[in-house]
Amino acid sequence: MSLYRLDASINPATSKSRALADLVEAEWTSQHPDSVVTRRDIGTHPLPSTTWRDVVMSGMTSDADLTQEQRDARALATTLADELIDADAILLAIPLYNWGIAAHVKSWYDITYTDARIKSGALAGKPVVLATVLGSDYRPGSPKEGWDHSTPWLRHVIEGVWKADLLVVQRQLTLVGANPAMDALKDQAAEVHAAAQQLAIEHGRALAAKRNAPGALV
Amino acid sequence: MSLYRLDASINPATSKSRALADLVEAEWTSQHPDSVVTRRDIGTHPLPSTTWRDVVMSGMTSDADLTQEQRDARALATTLADELIDADAILLAIPLYNWGIAAHVKSWYDITYTDARIKSGALAGKPVVLATVLGSDYRPGSPKEGWDHSTPWLRHVIEGVWKADLLVVQRQLTLVGANPAMDALKDQAAEVHAAAQQLAIEHGRALAAKRNAPGALV
Repeated sequence: MSLYRLDASINPATSKSRALADLVEAEWTSQHPDSVVTRRDIGTHPLPSTTWRDVVMSGMTSDADLTQEQRDARALATTLADELIDADAILLAIPLYNWGIAAHVKSWYDITYTDARIKSGALAGKPVVLATVLGSDYRPGSPKEGWDHSTPWLRHVIEGVWKADLLVVQRQLTLVGANPAMDALKDQAAEVHAAAQQLAIEHGRALAAKRNAPGALV
Repeated sequence: MSLYRLDASINPATSKSRALADLVEAEWTSQHPDSVVTRRDIGTHPLPSTTWRDVVMSGMTSDADLTQEQRDARALATTLADELIDADAILLAIPLYNWGIAAHVKSWYDITYTDARIKSGALAGKPVVLATVLGSDYRPGSPKEGWDHSTPWLRHVIEGVWKADLLVVQRQLTLVGANPAMDALKDQAAEVHAAAQQLAIEHGRALAAKRNAPGALV
């Protein structure tokens, strides 16, 4: 049995998305102590920015004319797709950066989505937890409401394209404490944090249980 | 005088965003025949995927301890920011890829946004045209309504963060003709195309005129 974990924070030492995902992972491991956890850290080791284009353009090239870069890019795409397809469950730890999807996350998604198996539904029904964090206040009525362009895209591609079985835990206001302008939100941030931790634990239990459910992917 | 043009298509040979931006550029050049056009193609020459993190992490490092990679990343960030700041007007040709902002566009934005001048408003009031294309049907009532996660993010960061003076021309349905499943939309696609071409020309004239307006940036 295996859990695939993707981390996208560029600063693991202080990462709030890692901390949230750790709670999910702990529940998984508690229920499946023999499970392998396969890790890929695209935050500190982003994929080459040329890979996706090389794979796409290789599709318009005859095999004999493929460049070495295109062959390497195809091999990397297959490796990344294998990691997802082979996993019994998937855990994604993804921060919001500059109000949009992290460039290295979009790149990873684009590369995996070149894989014919993933395009034809290989991830359908796969249990997935997304643990995501937002530095500022994006709650309804706040000035930045609607400025999180990462989570809605992730929901669309994970639920709508992969057709995976997605649970999301989101923690906002993570910059409270680091940004003095947000000091007035200290109590609210603590509540949001505690609620996110609780939900991460619940999602971790649900992820582990889904794997055990009758009819679960084997 | 100078126009800065950014292209993000990964396939210039068939690029619809380039074709749309060409109409904008032609109007600019017609009114400002002596203008320089500074070009950066991040579609075929994406920026390194490590640059943004290197710049961000360099901000947590003393100058004496900077790595060569961090120094190189800072220099690239300054070059990219200079290109935007020095331009009299900006033209962005950006396709939608996999329902989200192109990874290489997000990367470019993130890198430029590390620059202290841009953070403190150096692009405020700058005239910008965004020429963007979407392959499928994202119009209200269509199954993919709300799945364009690129244009809304671009509007937020260009208008809301840069506080630039933005005009947008968007062409949808560009896959009609290439994707037989969309053949029924042929007439609508032709109308959408013609309207986008007309709007690109109008935006090109407006961009050139803004540069001439009293009080324009010099």
